[in-house]
Amino acid sequence: MAEVVHMIDSEVFLAFSTYATIVILKMMLMAPLTAYFRLTRKAFANPEDAGMSKNEEEKKKMVRTDPDVERVRRCHQNDLENIIPFVVIGLLYALTGPDLHTALLHFRIFVGSRFIHTIAYVMVLPQPSRGLAWMAGMGATFSMAYRILTTALYL
Amino acid sequence: MAEVVHMIDSEVFLAFSTYATIVILKMMLMAPLTAYFRLTRKAFANPEDAGMSKNEEEKKKMVRTDPDVERVRRCHQNDLENIIPFVVIGLLYALTGPDLHTALLHFRIFVGSRFIHTIAYVMVLPQPSRGLAWMAGMGATFSMAYRILTTALYL
Amino acid sequence: MAEVVHMIDSEVFLAFSTYATIVILKMMLMAPLTAYFRLTRKAFANPEDAGMSKNEEEKKKMVRTDPDVERVRRCHQNDLENIIPFVVIGLLYALTGPDLHTALLHFRIFVGSRFIHTIAYVMVLPQPSRGLAWMAGMGATFSMAYRILTTALYL
Repeated sequence: MAEVVHMIDSEVFLAFSTYATIVILKMMLMAPLTAYFRLTRKAFANPEDAGMSKNEEEKKKMVRTDPDVERVRRCHQNDLENIIPFVVIGLLYALTGPDLHTALLHFRIFVGSRFIHTIAYVMVLPQPSRGLAWMAGMGATFSMAYRILTTALYL
Repeated sequence: MAEVVHMIDSEVFLAFSTYATIVILKMMLMAPLTAYFRLTRKAFANPEDAGMSKNEEEKKKMVRTDPDVERVRRCHQNDLENIIPFVVIGLLYALTGPDLHTALLHFRIFVGSRFIHTIAYVMVLPQPSRGLAWMAGMGATFSMAYRILTTALYL
Repeated sequence: MAEVVHMIDSEVFLAFSTYATIVILKMMLMAPLTAYFRLTRKAFANPEDAGMSKNEEEKKKMVRTDPDVERVRRCHQNDLENIIPFVVIGLLYALTGPDLHTALLHFRIFVGSRFIHTIAYVMVLPQPSRGLAWMAGMGATFSMAYRILTTALYL
């Protein structure tokens, strides 16, 4: 990690900023998508959210789980479990001064794989589409982690 | 993102560090709050946690879900889904060299909105208090993401 | 946070990179562990994942929750709730220019405590083993947050 300071101004860091922002925005859009399914399926987690109900009894009925809502929530959770490690590992990786083309390849594979993962999950595409997208993302993150540990190991 | 190196020493970065630390600490305090509700409601997720029970049968009964515990856990989950994107986007935003007053406005709106969100969630305040707090936080993060992508786009 | 720029090249930052990468990798390995338990327990979250089933009826039966799978998922969730705050706070802490030995002590206690926490959770070790491991990790993160706020407060 020599001359790391110069790395922050580098094209690699700009590319990281761009891809990290895009994939975090994608993750954040899972929340409005969940809200959309909650409203159309009338399945809420809190009684105070069922505002369109006429009476207390109907309100209680709307506090329930719905398969479509749960599917979007699992997709959101999988994003948390994969995108956040990518952002952390990717930031440290960008500071190790990797080759620009190699770095872009990692960032593009990861971000592309997460978009495919979301489509496969929400649209219920047959396996192994979702599984392969998940693996591609994991692979990109592991590959960047490998470079960090071989470049900058300090235990 | 020109002259980014100087930005790390800047007041914007100091402000980001302060607000990010405060809001992460707020998120971490959801764990003791969950523990408090688990202990007072005697509702645990693991049989080995129900240590105050007299026998095995009573222990099994304490492995159950409780509405108050689940409410705090949903609030914690919502924090994870919103505060972590803020921290990532906010860090990259601080490196784009924004105006100090604009940056402080973003950080203060976000952190304030998350405290209001937690109070509205745990105290079961009527909607749209929680919804509006959530939206204010999302808006602040989206606004910072917009600046990153317009300042430093590199695909 | 004076002379922060020099800190990025420092041994503290290298140490942070190493420990953050290791503990994030540990967290990511919870996903394959969950997959292992889902396959051996035949308990899936999505019908399209139960690919080894012979017919539709058997597929529906495999969409169920299993205590072992849920235990690993809770452990993964606890990692998200604790390791991500550590990474954020740890990064900002490393930029405050702490003493190398103090910093290493914090990083080692945190990372060690999370490995013990995972073993205690998945192996169902009797309490308070898991509780103490969780507290040690929280303590290390709180201690670093305290230094950030006392060194670089800018509200």
